[in-house]
Amino acid sequence: MTTPTSWVEGAAGSPYDVDNLPYGVFTRADEDPRVGVRIGDFVLDATPVSAADMLDLHHVFEERSLNPLMAEGPLAWRSLRQWLTGLLTDETERDLVEPHLIPLDEVELLPPVEVADYVDFYASLDHASNVGKMFRPDQEPLLPNWRHLPVGYHGRAGTVVPSGTPIVRPSGQRKAPDATAPTFGPSARLDIEAELGFVVGAPSALGTPVGAASFADHVFGVVGLNDWSARDIQAWEYVPLGPFLGKSFATSISRWVTPLAALDAAWVDLPGQDPAPLPYLAVDGPAGLDISVEVELNGEVVSRPPYSSMYWSPAQMLAHMTVNGASLRTGDLFASGTISGPDKEQRGSLLELSWGGKEPFAVGDDTRTFLEDGDRVVLRYTAPGTLGGRIALGEVAGEVVS
Amino acid sequence: MTTPTSWVEGAAGSPYDVDNLPYGVFTRADEDPRVGVRIGDFVLDATPVSAADMLDLHHVFEERSLNPLMAEGPLAWRSLRQWLTGLLTDETERDLVEPHLIPLDEVELLPPVEVADYVDFYASLDHASNVGKMFRPDQEPLLPNWRHLPVGYHGRAGTVVPSGTPIVRPSGQRKAPDATAPTFGPSARLDIEAELGFVVGAPSALGTPVGAASFADHVFGVVGLNDWSARDIQAWEYVPLGPFLGKSFATSISRWVTPLAALDAAWVDLPGQDPAPLPYLAVDGPAGLDISVEVELNGEVVSRPPYSSMYWSPAQMLAHMTVNGASLRTGDLFASGTISGPDKEQRGSLLELSWGGKEPFAVGDDTRTFLEDGDRVVLRYTAPGTLGGRIALGEVAGEVVS
Repeated sequence: MTTPTSWVEGAAGSPYDVDNLPYGVFTRADEDPRVGVRIGDFVLDATPVSAADMLDLHHVFEERSLNPLMAEGPLAWRSLRQWLTGLLTDETERDLVEPHLIPLDEVELLPPVEVADYVDFYASLDHASNVGKMFRPDQEPLLPNWRHLPVGYHGRAGTVVPSGTPIVRPSGQRKAPDATAPTFGPSARLDIEAELGFVVGAPSALGTPVGAASFADHVFGVVGLNDWSARDIQAWEYVPLGPFLGKSFATSISRWVTPLAALDAAWVDLPGQDPAPLPYLAVDGPAGLDISVEVELNGEVVSRPPYSSMYWSPAQMLAHMTVNGASLRTGDLFASGTISGPDKEQRGSLLELSWGGKEPFAVGDDTRTFLEDGDRVVLRYTAPGTLGGRIALGEVAGEVVS
Repeated sequence: MTTPTSWVEGAAGSPYDVDNLPYGVFTRADEDPRVGVRIGDFVLDATPVSAADMLDLHHVFEERSLNPLMAEGPLAWRSLRQWLTGLLTDETERDLVEPHLIPLDEVELLPPVEVADYVDFYASLDHASNVGKMFRPDQEPLLPNWRHLPVGYHGRAGTVVPSGTPIVRPSGQRKAPDATAPTFGPSARLDIEAELGFVVGAPSALGTPVGAASFADHVFGVVGLNDWSARDIQAWEYVPLGPFLGKSFATSISRWVTPLAALDAAWVDLPGQDPAPLPYLAVDGPAGLDISVEVELNGEVVSRPPYSSMYWSPAQMLAHMTVNGASLRTGDLFASGTISGPDKEQRGSLLELSWGGKEPFAVGDDTRTFLEDGDRVVLRYTAPGTLGGRIALGEVAGEVVS
């Protein structure tokens, strides 16, 4: 049996058919915020439909964030997805459902998740190599630990903001290489990092590692993520304890969360790991994701990073993050790090696209090294869906203001 | 007028007189958790007393964490402290209050704060110099940025645990300097870091820095803090993005939060900053804290770090953390980093006490380099109170289990 497509007008064959069904939190006019599901160009208002259907889990839709839904765990996630698919493909449900399909342009999307801890990895071999070549030109580009573990660090959860939030150019200390002392002022090297974020639903106990094979038992879904970075602030501050103010001013995520089940057709083999990782990082079968990313700057596509080129898999990131016994909470967010492919037009940061600011690159009729005030960045993501077409993941937009 | 002492039995002249009044969250038998205040060896059950007194803010006591109280802001904090001081010093309140004084040994103390973001600084010149000398013996001990900004990084908020939580020895990757590849196993260099933590009450807006002069408008109080560290895991992982799994398995905080007002008599001048910091880090008047710390290992005091020796002040940490526009949330926790004084017996980590594990130090009749299973660490903190004696801050205890 092939999965049928949706009866909702315009949904069948679109990037938002029933093989996608991302979750978000929305409000309309003065109504209470609640959970909705995107189908075609509509938001399904799941609260009244689930109540009418006397769904056990209907309470998870009457919430201001996805956290209660995510906390229910993988059996509940699957059962909700089956229920939604049934509603949106079975013509006999039309009378029940149709009154609760709200055109997208009538709603405001709110932050989807209350973020617990935010961790950012550094999982792209090409990105890490590019950064190494720029900053340590006389040395091996990769540091000794890079191929042995997915390098990562904690970021600031409180400044994770939803797509569309204006990005205020941060000020801070930076020091030119030949200066004797730092100066204070607005960052002159404001950058993006095109990333993918993974949202944890089911928590884990302190002291108990979560193995790579348990990835789908804990991770609820994915978001688009832009890890805005002030390279000059970062370069001065980051030794020896890592990035801090160069990153903590804002991290944007999409307003839609794509459930992991929507990526069933997107799993691919990793490009290959050499040396073989330690046993706790071993993965069986396809552990990479065939997700295409587009980086748009002021309306021009400037890069197309392929997620399939990432060295470390998300399941390995999860296993590494918890191998010391660190617990997971509902709402934990971990991100891939900049997605860069091997080719120049596949680089996921302006640092790499402009090779450290030395090679301005074309943006339509204009050129850029780093971001200028008024610049608008949109990250878009697509993946193969289970119906044969491509699904669209949540996009992430942001405009730089002074 | 001198402030009178408390009528509560045993409180007057003790480290828990009315010049202290730390807040905590407690439960007794099957009763609901709620906020209490320590006086002498009792917990004042503030909920019924504030209700009987028809206090506007009585609802903040009927909560499972201090966050709602902390979110009220500095005017409310002051007004509650005045009310509590009145109750506990005015003999005419005795009939109202005495039935609601619960002996400490009848209650269980719960985690006091829902931690939002956790940031750890590196503010001790002696600690940073000691670490530099050990790890980079041929270079200047302090890195170039250290005297220009309070170096810090984000830690894992989800693994901040209350005093008394057993500390499971973490496993992870570590590589001996002469080995060609890392191995996996339990940390062999498990350490403590004796620190002081600052808890944010009043939030701030994204994009708006909080100046050093606004410290007391945002910071509610202080906790004792032990930043458990697996030095072998940390040494292998931390380049270039900083500490991650070497720290994220557990950070212990005290179960009592001492309000900032209790430290009014503890402010002292900083030891001196050279070069003068940039203007956004300038502080007026006494910005350091005269807090004495005791590190007890298996019942023996092995170190007495003086907080007054810290180079960077807490107000400077706050100003730096937000200068890029990063917002504060109620429950944000930032810690000082290891407190070490200039003398050997003032070092706040075993790494320093054993000089990188090379010089075992005495613990009673025993010796130690790093922590062994079954070792019990207690950090104790005292400061001058406003009544002429010393107040005790919340202690932090933890035992290592395999």
